[in-house]
Amino acid sequence: MTSTLITLLSDFGSHSPYPAAMKAVLAAYGQHLLVDISHDVPRHDIRAGAYLLATIVPFVPAGTVHLAVVDPGVGTARRALIVVAGGQYFVGPDNGLLLPAARKVGRPRAYVITDERLLRGVRSSTFHGRDLFAPAAGLLAQGTPPAALGSPAPEIIDLEIGEGRLERGVLVGEVVYVDAFGNLITSIPAALLPPEGSRLALRAGSRLAAATVGRTYADRPRGRLVVVPGSDGLVEIAVREGNAAATLRASAGTFVRLKIRR
Amino acid sequence: MTSTLITLLSDFGSHSPYPAAMKAVLAAYGQHLLVDISHDVPRHDIRAGAYLLATIVPFVPAGTVHLAVVDPGVGTARRALIVVAGGQYFVGPDNGLLLPAARKVGRPRAYVITDERLLRGVRSSTFHGRDLFAPAAGLLAQGTPPAALGSPAPEIIDLEIGEGRLERGVLVGEVVYVDAFGNLITSIPAALLPPEGSRLALRAGSRLAAATVGRTYADRPRGRLVVVPGSDGLVEIAVREGNAAATLRASAGTFVRLKIRR
Amino acid sequence: MTSTLITLLSDFGSHSPYPAAMKAVLAAYGQHLLVDISHDVPRHDIRAGAYLLATIVPFVPAGTVHLAVVDPGVGTARRALIVVAGGQYFVGPDNGLLLPAARKVGRPRAYVITDERLLRGVRSSTFHGRDLFAPAAGLLAQGTPPAALGSPAPEIIDLEIGEGRLERGVLVGEVVYVDAFGNLITSIPAALLPPEGSRLALRAGSRLAAATVGRTYADRPRGRLVVVPGSDGLVEIAVREGNAAATLRASAGTFVRLKIRR
Repeated sequence: MTSTLITLLSDFGSHSPYPAAMKAVLAAYGQHLLVDISHDVPRHDIRAGAYLLATIVPFVPAGTVHLAVVDPGVGTARRALIVVAGGQYFVGPDNGLLLPAARKVGRPRAYVITDERLLRGVRSSTFHGRDLFAPAAGLLAQGTPPAALGSPAPEIIDLEIGEGRLERGVLVGEVVYVDAFGNLITSIPAALLPPEGSRLALRAGSRLAAATVGRTYADRPRGRLVVVPGSDGLVEIAVREGNAAATLRASAGTFVRLKIRR
Repeated sequence: MTSTLITLLSDFGSHSPYPAAMKAVLAAYGQHLLVDISHDVPRHDIRAGAYLLATIVPFVPAGTVHLAVVDPGVGTARRALIVVAGGQYFVGPDNGLLLPAARKVGRPRAYVITDERLLRGVRSSTFHGRDLFAPAAGLLAQGTPPAALGSPAPEIIDLEIGEGRLERGVLVGEVVYVDAFGNLITSIPAALLPPEGSRLALRAGSRLAAATVGRTYADRPRGRLVVVPGSDGLVEIAVREGNAAATLRASAGTFVRLKIRR
Repeated sequence: MTSTLITLLSDFGSHSPYPAAMKAVLAAYGQHLLVDISHDVPRHDIRAGAYLLATIVPFVPAGTVHLAVVDPGVGTARRALIVVAGGQYFVGPDNGLLLPAARKVGRPRAYVITDERLLRGVRSSTFHGRDLFAPAAGLLAQGTPPAALGSPAPEIIDLEIGEGRLERGVLVGEVVYVDAFGNLITSIPAALLPPEGSRLALRAGSRLAAATVGRTYADRPRGRLVVVPGSDGLVEIAVREGNAAATLRASAGTFVRLKIRR
């Protein structure tokens, strides 16, 4: 029997026992490699979950199964999905969570889970992560084809992670994520950045600051703002050995504007 | 060689290196699936640890080994146990931690660890999780029978997680756990709940509030109290997209009373 | 194919998605056992990372690969290393992080990573953990010899974790780590401790207190200071069911002095 990488993402809290409950269920479907992306997605923040899931997909082997649960609508009529793209499988609620990641690796095809054995498990449950999504992920990891578990779903709920752009010489976008170091990951594609060493007039929300384009965080003196091409292909704003989010009072959703100074 | 699910639970702190030390030891006993239930059990809170361990046992395969260490008596004469129930193995201190979980899946049989090779490791150690319990769990995962590692222990320290009850038309119990969302898991069996839609006069500690019986968290408008049958078979009190523990100023041990309003 | 234990240590934050990104890369190199030591090393604190890594090495099987990234110099000219000692492999930056652990298990031999396929991955990256160190660790786990990935490096940056000592009847050292319980792990070798029951005049920074040498934390009444031989072979200062760091206002680096009272 082959081993599959199964990633897990949720807003259950890494200090809660719920991630372990999902893994206990997965253990019945073979000896796979279980990797937590994060269980500390801000509660019910589908957008943050979608961003984090999308950061991982370029780096996993074909056949990987992603089990993702950020699900404010659990227990309502919202549907349960399997999405296939680029040889990877995504299992979770039909609320947009899975789409940005799937689109990053291929053209998504979606299935609504209709398998009776899977749905029977959730009749009286508020824990679909354990009772529906984990068994579905386990079956996919064993090689069950998605079409055996559900019906093609031509229309599913979508979510766009808006892309920053160049507007009359000014880079415009927003903060999509603040990492554990306080670095600001923006929606602006790194390919739009001017050359290393360029000086920028940075605006984040209502704060103004001077910054420089670097290749890495280490390119500037301590405590100074540096704008770098991030490892996800997005522009990042950092303070060397400091915290850019605190310096700029910025958070996810903060408007960002970068103007080249001449 | 077969692979076994080994769960780990402790109060060592998920940010500490101690869970990794136990896993490093387990790695010498074969390629098993190691799943953390939680390492953030409140320090020395045997009751909370026992509750969390018991939430997982219905969902794991037969043969699973549970390594659980909440151990205020480490280094005293307290005994080290292996408990067997329902085809699952529980390893940890003789302080009641293992019993509620074991009883949930079968009739517990207990062994006091007497194996000299195992006990030799702890003569000068304050870290029995790594030096005694992890090796014992590793041997069990390899198929060593418990009777080869210890002697039957007819009397061990017990712990009851008290069960809520129906008293003259009023459901009475206590909060046994507050989850990462602030949902209150009570000791009241979900089977005692009145039908969906029933209106309740809820009392938690000294706070009074109106609530409604729902099937899921999503059955009520945002910010309103809902009482649902939880995924563990216990009554849960939640606020949709809110925090019931904060709303009701409740925590583990808070008295709960639910009266049906007519 | 055999399975290898790969440990991971970083300052990326356990709530960040970066540890998962490293594991996703490692998944392409075979089915290994991935164990997190900690991803909550204080940011850029090479000394704390080196201490935590060194706590694990006595307990892992030969062949273990350690992937450790605390790397304030990422993106500068600092070199990337493989260190071999006692049959274990250490992968990380050339800043001293790997040396104390390696020295604990053998005589370290260092290689600077020069493999072109590995270095190509980091040309435009600020995430060497994922793009350089994880692939190197994966190749080592598969059995690639270090000499195939780099050149011998006779001179690398070293880091000493200073050892406490006995000076005219007084034990002198410093706090090297505060664990999740507030216990103080000191740099003083446990072998220097006077016999159990000895009374000590303890000084931590500017605070003075009376303490007793115990064998375990449980040897003293609640709330009293006890000095014990720790599980790492170092003297630990604890308060039974209390917090020694808070009691003594001590933290990593605090000077410690233990004088035997007669």
